[in-house]
Amino acid sequence: MAETIISSRTKVVRIGPDLPFTIIGERINPTGRKKLAAEMAAGDFSRVICDATAQVEAGAHMLDVNAGIPLADEPAILAETIRLVQSVVEVPLSIDSSVVAALARGLEAYEGKALVNSVTGEEERLEAVLPLVKKHNAAVIGISNDETGISEDPDVRFAVAKKIVERAMDYGIPREDVLIDPLVMPIGAVRYAGRQVFHIVGRCRDELGVNTCCGASNVSFGLPNRGPLNATFLAMAIGAGLSSAITNPLEPAIRQAILAADVMTGNDENCLNWIAASRTGDGDGGDPEGAGRPERRERRIRRRG
Amino acid sequence: MAETIISSRTKVVRIGPDLPFTIIGERINPTGRKKLAAEMAAGDFSRVICDATAQVEAGAHMLDVNAGIPLADEPAILAETIRLVQSVVEVPLSIDSSVVAALARGLEAYEGKALVNSVTGEEERLEAVLPLVKKHNAAVIGISNDETGISEDPDVRFAVAKKIVERAMDYGIPREDVLIDPLVMPIGAVRYAGRQVFHIVGRCRDELGVNTCCGASNVSFGLPNRGPLNATFLAMAIGAGLSSAITNPLEPAIRQAILAADVMTGNDENCLNWIAASRTGDGDGGDPEGAGRPERRERRIRRRG
Repeated sequence: MAETIISSRTKVVRIGPDLPFTIIGERINPTGRKKLAAEMAAGDFSRVICDATAQVEAGAHMLDVNAGIPLADEPAILAETIRLVQSVVEVPLSIDSSVVAALARGLEAYEGKALVNSVTGEEERLEAVLPLVKKHNAAVIGISNDETGISEDPDVRFAVAKKIVERAMDYGIPREDVLIDPLVMPIGAVRYAGRQVFHIVGRCRDELGVNTCCGASNVSFGLPNRGPLNATFLAMAIGAGLSSAITNPLEPAIRQAILAADVMTGNDENCLNWIAASRTGDGDGGDPEGAGRPERRERRIRRRG
Repeated sequence: MAETIISSRTKVVRIGPDLPFTIIGERINPTGRKKLAAEMAAGDFSRVICDATAQVEAGAHMLDVNAGIPLADEPAILAETIRLVQSVVEVPLSIDSSVVAALARGLEAYEGKALVNSVTGEEERLEAVLPLVKKHNAAVIGISNDETGISEDPDVRFAVAKKIVERAMDYGIPREDVLIDPLVMPIGAVRYAGRQVFHIVGRCRDELGVNTCCGASNVSFGLPNRGPLNATFLAMAIGAGLSSAITNPLEPAIRQAILAADVMTGNDENCLNWIAASRTGDGDGGDPEGAGRPERRERRIRRRG
């Protein structure tokens, strides 16, 4: 199974089943963050800069960048945010929008090989987004829903995933440049939301040979004590084969669970990242400032064979 | 897939893939606990009583009882310990010894349907232990090693598991009364120890239709910050299908990960145990005294269908 390679001007991130898990920081997103939305709309990016550096310090290997602000000029703001974030951190970015014009402007602004977040299995989206992805030689997250909505049958969601991968290949986008997002439903409302994800992720790995990515925080929506729930969900999803997630590395329970899960999959070779994090207190969740973050990804990744 | 049923005089524990995970408390075991060993050999069981009640308060659904003290009369001490533990807590017990005579005495002393810990795939052990299990209508843990040792190939370990299940059935022990222990190796020494366990557990569930049990703490042997590693390992193993473990419920990270994993498998119906634990502080690891333990198992278990 091939690795997905994403890059900035100076850094390469490799995503794959035999590599340490890839954390994509979720914080640069005005959805539900009124203050951030107002600031970004007004051209004040100080909080974006703080969020960017803090997440990288806390161990994010990539950052997701979203500028979805109602009534604002999303394409322009997204492009500006991307340029700014790339000027302050070195990690590659995921360009996050549901507006095709914003993805286009974001891709134009981006230096390196980006991850496009996202396309769905809807015909109109596939036809609009995939040519852009191909044009910029980017990778793309394919979300496993389509015109019929989000099926509760994981095999139906898998079929949508398969369609996205096949369509991407029709456009000349190689299989390894598609990451499938199995769609994480809130488990307080959908009892088998976890089992659905584990099932889809396993089939994506075994049958499609593609890497996977998900937004992890949604699973605990509406439940108390969400950090540990998200952390445990991620560990179990990693066990099932998940290769990356858009999540919050500033949450100590999440960072710790991912480090521990890498030990358990054998992808933290000689447990070096775990031991390093434990020495500095990162492994026990006592270091939210991230002084004990693992070595930079491009140094620590190594093939299994 | 059938449920395993274990009982004391007054309590029934059901173990199965669609039920909340079963915690078997590991603490009543003099191995590596010099003080406890000396006390038990001298007939002082005060610490055993404390360990028993504390583990049940912390959420153990069953307790493992081991009396393996060098140069002591293990059969007599094991029988006495079992009688005593059954007089102070109501949960069913796992009778833990490598000495067949001790298992025999323990089974005679036990009231209810016990879990015998354990038999291996070694011919001599199979022929000695299985008749005892059958005679007492007990259940048994089958450990997936044999005369050739512990294979690093999970498919070889699975073949041993299969042999144990088949041999048990030859003795008239039903399939559901065999729990397979996939054998957890220390991951600091055996890089793919985690993947081995996840693989064997999945095959036991899918191909043999049997429940599984493991001693979880060994996985982190020699590594720093063991609690969170054990907790993450358990969550991932539960995701792979593990149905019970001999572990330490007094460790908050472990208890929390198991509660969260039950949410993620959909086996904590309506997330009621998680919500209850969060209210009392149990879910965030802040209640080592266990005041917030989940409702008693026999009340909260419920079939999925």
